[in-house]
Amino acid sequence: MRDFSADHRWLSLNTATVRKQGDLVAIIEGCGRHDIRAIDPWRDQVAAVGLDRAVRAVRDAGLELSGYCRGGMFTSDAARRTEVRDDNRRCVDEAKALGASCIVLVAGGLPQYSRPGSAVSKDIVAARAQVDDALAEMLDYARQAKLPLAIEPLHPAYAADRACVNTTKQALDICDRLDPERTGALGVALDVYHIWWDPDLAGQIARAGRDRLLAFHVCDWLVPTRDILNDRGMMGDGVIDIRAVRGAVEAQGYAGYSEIEIFSDDWWEKPMDDVLRTCIERHRTVV
Amino acid sequence: MRDFSADHRWLSLNTATVRKQGDLVAIIEGCGRHDIRAIDPWRDQVAAVGLDRAVRAVRDAGLELSGYCRGGMFTSDAARRTEVRDDNRRCVDEAKALGASCIVLVAGGLPQYSRPGSAVSKDIVAARAQVDDALAEMLDYARQAKLPLAIEPLHPAYAADRACVNTTKQALDICDRLDPERTGALGVALDVYHIWWDPDLAGQIARAGRDRLLAFHVCDWLVPTRDILNDRGMMGDGVIDIRAVRGAVEAQGYAGYSEIEIFSDDWWEKPMDDVLRTCIERHRTVV
Repeated sequence: MRDFSADHRWLSLNTATVRKQGDLVAIIEGCGRHDIRAIDPWRDQVAAVGLDRAVRAVRDAGLELSGYCRGGMFTSDAARRTEVRDDNRRCVDEAKALGASCIVLVAGGLPQYSRPGSAVSKDIVAARAQVDDALAEMLDYARQAKLPLAIEPLHPAYAADRACVNTTKQALDICDRLDPERTGALGVALDVYHIWWDPDLAGQIARAGRDRLLAFHVCDWLVPTRDILNDRGMMGDGVIDIRAVRGAVEAQGYAGYSEIEIFSDDWWEKPMDDVLRTCIERHRTVV
Repeated sequence: MRDFSADHRWLSLNTATVRKQGDLVAIIEGCGRHDIRAIDPWRDQVAAVGLDRAVRAVRDAGLELSGYCRGGMFTSDAARRTEVRDDNRRCVDEAKALGASCIVLVAGGLPQYSRPGSAVSKDIVAARAQVDDALAEMLDYARQAKLPLAIEPLHPAYAADRACVNTTKQALDICDRLDPERTGALGVALDVYHIWWDPDLAGQIARAGRDRLLAFHVCDWLVPTRDILNDRGMMGDGVIDIRAVRGAVEAQGYAGYSEIEIFSDDWWEKPMDDVLRTCIERHRTVV
């Protein structure tokens, strides 16, 4: 297991962590001030400054992209299938322009939440089948662009409105169905927030192996969690044994970034430099 | 699958659903007004009126008990092991006096939340091992009292603070370890709120079979869920395909009560009779 205590060489910043404090260009400048070498930007943040400007800012700063957030939202009613396909193709094009190492995929929950306006459904089994189909289509496109796709299983608390892929096993089952040869085109993005509770976690991380482990995200689970979306904790402030999970991932050969992604009304209120300093300190002490 | 549309013969009221509107005696009177034949009372509600009075009120009303909430909270530090054991034995004694059909068990999360004052731990694997041990001890006592124990897997959102048993598979694995002969002494209480998201749900319900299906609880998952503990929905107001889950349970031969358990700041604010009327109407139309 790598020693993170001496520096933050392997810290990547998911730019949602400071999304309220500045636009993508301001966040990239912040990374420069704190010697952060990698980011994972969100599509809306890229769109807000313009793709060309984002590409230049990333390149000028010499940043790597540990991922691009996010593709997916595969579930919809029939009328919106083309929208889903085209949206995800644009995502691949953007990720390619930005030089991202992978696209993080959030599957989508029930269609009415994933693609608003879709007919209301309570059929999560059907939603899951749809994810397979739409992801297969995106995978064809992403393979041509040589852009790996990383399925992020989301905590079961998001099953209805964000992602019906809720366990690492489920994500890996999809990988095995769509990429049985383990070509590297499809894998998982594991975020400790979403997976820490899973009784099957150790076994599934071992099953994933280095081929399938495309991204690793950290934050913490607070008790109590006051808001299921925007009350994630800074690493060390919650109950997750982050180092144990990182150890399991690295035991499989994962050697990439440890990406910090914190959705938090509390942290969004603090100055960007304070947040980044704290991220670095916690990366060195508890991640 | 049973037809619930004509009456509410198989409706049981978990008394937490109207806990803010009156004490246990008042709730039992409410059940009388609405021809509700069964309840599942909580220990604190029984304690508040006194066990003897609760026993008399239940008997005088001719009520059945579809369960007794709750035993468990098995996780603690070493100093509190005796407290855990004695607390659960008292729970068995109370359930026996009340004539409950089973005790609903909530496993406990990390020790510091399950048994406050316990040393802080982030080791959920250790917590799970402790559940096995303490549950085995309780099972010995409950067998002598001929009181079945029903492990309730709780939604993964409660893994830290309430229950580290978070899937039906996990609960059934415990059953298989501690009661491999399927004697009827140990099974599961399945609440749609906790399990609806589970991609492995159908398979695990089939695995449970009639022997292990000791209780079935209903409410609904609201989108958005504003409070992870106390914003559960009335059946029909959320995204759960309740009838599909009941169908799967009944396909295994489950023929017991469909117990309504709703923790909701909204519903706690309404008059008891309004809540009970709505429960009955939804039981007939969406459960």
